[in-house]
Amino acid sequence: MFLAKVRGNVVSTQKNNYLHGHKLMIVRKVDLSGNFVGNTDEIAIDQVDAGIGDTVIVVKEGDAVQQVLGHRKAPVNTIIIAVVDDIDIPVK
Amino acid sequence: MFLAKVRGNVVSTQKNNYLHGHKLMIVRKVDLSGNFVGNTDEIAIDQVDAGIGDTVIVVKEGDAVQQVLGHRKAPVNTIIIAVVDDIDIPVK
Amino acid sequence: MFLAKVRGNVVSTQKNNYLHGHKLMIVRKVDLSGNFVGNTDEIAIDQVDAGIGDTVIVVKEGDAVQQVLGHRKAPVNTIIIAVVDDIDIPVK
Amino acid sequence: MFLAKVRGNVVSTQKNNYLHGHKLMIVRKVDLSGNFVGNTDEIAIDQVDAGIGDTVIVVKEGDAVQQVLGHRKAPVNTIIIAVVDDIDIPVK
Amino acid sequence: MFLAKVRGNVVSTQKNNYLHGHKLMIVRKVDLSGNFVGNTDEIAIDQVDAGIGDTVIVVKEGDAVQQVLGHRKAPVNTIIIAVVDDIDIPVK
Repeated sequence: MFLAKVRGNVVSTQKNNYLHGHKLMIVRKVDLSGNFVGNTDEIAIDQVDAGIGDTVIVVKEGDAVQQVLGHRKAPVNTIIIAVVDDIDIPVK
Repeated sequence: MFLAKVRGNVVSTQKNNYLHGHKLMIVRKVDLSGNFVGNTDEIAIDQVDAGIGDTVIVVKEGDAVQQVLGHRKAPVNTIIIAVVDDIDIPVK
Repeated sequence: MFLAKVRGNVVSTQKNNYLHGHKLMIVRKVDLSGNFVGNTDEIAIDQVDAGIGDTVIVVKEGDAVQQVLGHRKAPVNTIIIAVVDDIDIPVK
Repeated sequence: MFLAKVRGNVVSTQKNNYLHGHKLMIVRKVDLSGNFVGNTDEIAIDQVDAGIGDTVIVVKEGDAVQQVLGHRKAPVNTIIIAVVDDIDIPVK
Repeated sequence: MFLAKVRGNVVSTQKNNYLHGHKLMIVRKVDLSGNFVGNTDEIAIDQVDAGIGDTVIVVKEGDAVQQVLGHRKAPVNTIIIAVVDDIDIPVK
């Protein structure tokens, strides 16, 4: 599971049936300060009403994600599971 | 899940039975502007009638893909699930 | 499975239901001497009462983690499974 | 799934029972021109009678591979699923 | 699946119950000549009585490993499945 920032979304009409009704968000990994790590974007389904610019926790794992969606046949494996309020790193 | 562009296809006669009747496409990851990311191609099964040159969403996950194909024993794990019409990234 | 050090934790209120009651820890991979490897942090659920600064063993695998939590629908795939007491590398 | 070339094989007598009777091949990823990508070899089980020097399609995914072998307990996750005859990339 | 060399082991008392009775070995990937690839160590459970210094085949895949251990809830995903006797690469 990793931290990411929501950057935008993808529009598609010619797609697998199980994708209908789900928002396809563009997310990119960030570090603890909110800076982007690398320059690779991923496509994630949103389940917690995340907005563009939010810092979120993303999990990649097909089996878990399918069950969350309630469709064993949904061919998806990336999902936003939480919007982050705060990050605590003690100074040592 | 990631964005990719369809580049071509692979021909094979000596193969696992579950691959018969499925198109084996060559796809390469692209960024939001459609430029290739890295120089690694992957082999993906097409389920949404994607054409060469199309920007698509690809998912890698064996369990999900097997169920979409309806064969629990199909030894495949990469599939094209959507053709992308548009990408929206708000200017901030 | 890899060695990591616990660095802090994440606070989230707007999240998937299955995450309630679980600590979301920030962990970073370390080598056998305890030095950080790379600069990527991951978010892991803690199941062995690990504290900040502890060296731990982390496993990433959705199916296993879901069953440990007792929720087949928990969309998580990273967990702390052990606190490390000692590392033995024979001198050859 | 990715393209690879078969380079050799591994001999082992002290091994998991489910590996008996299966050929353990050494494969390395190749690009569309058949040139090696990186210098990392992987160990794959052969199911399509691939020979040394053949270009093949390799899939890594434990669950699928176990079912192909008919042993749910077989601790393997890499398999050769097809020998490649031809690669078509249209000139644009 | 990849080749690795056993380097040492990890000692832990505060750990998940399913880890009791299993040896936690430190392994690092090697090439066909037995030289280390990269400098990342992984933690693997030993099932074939591998000794320190042995070249082994390691598989990472939670589902397979859990079933080998006979515990569906064992949160582990890395295992030593074979000790390598010989590697054959034909000269071409």
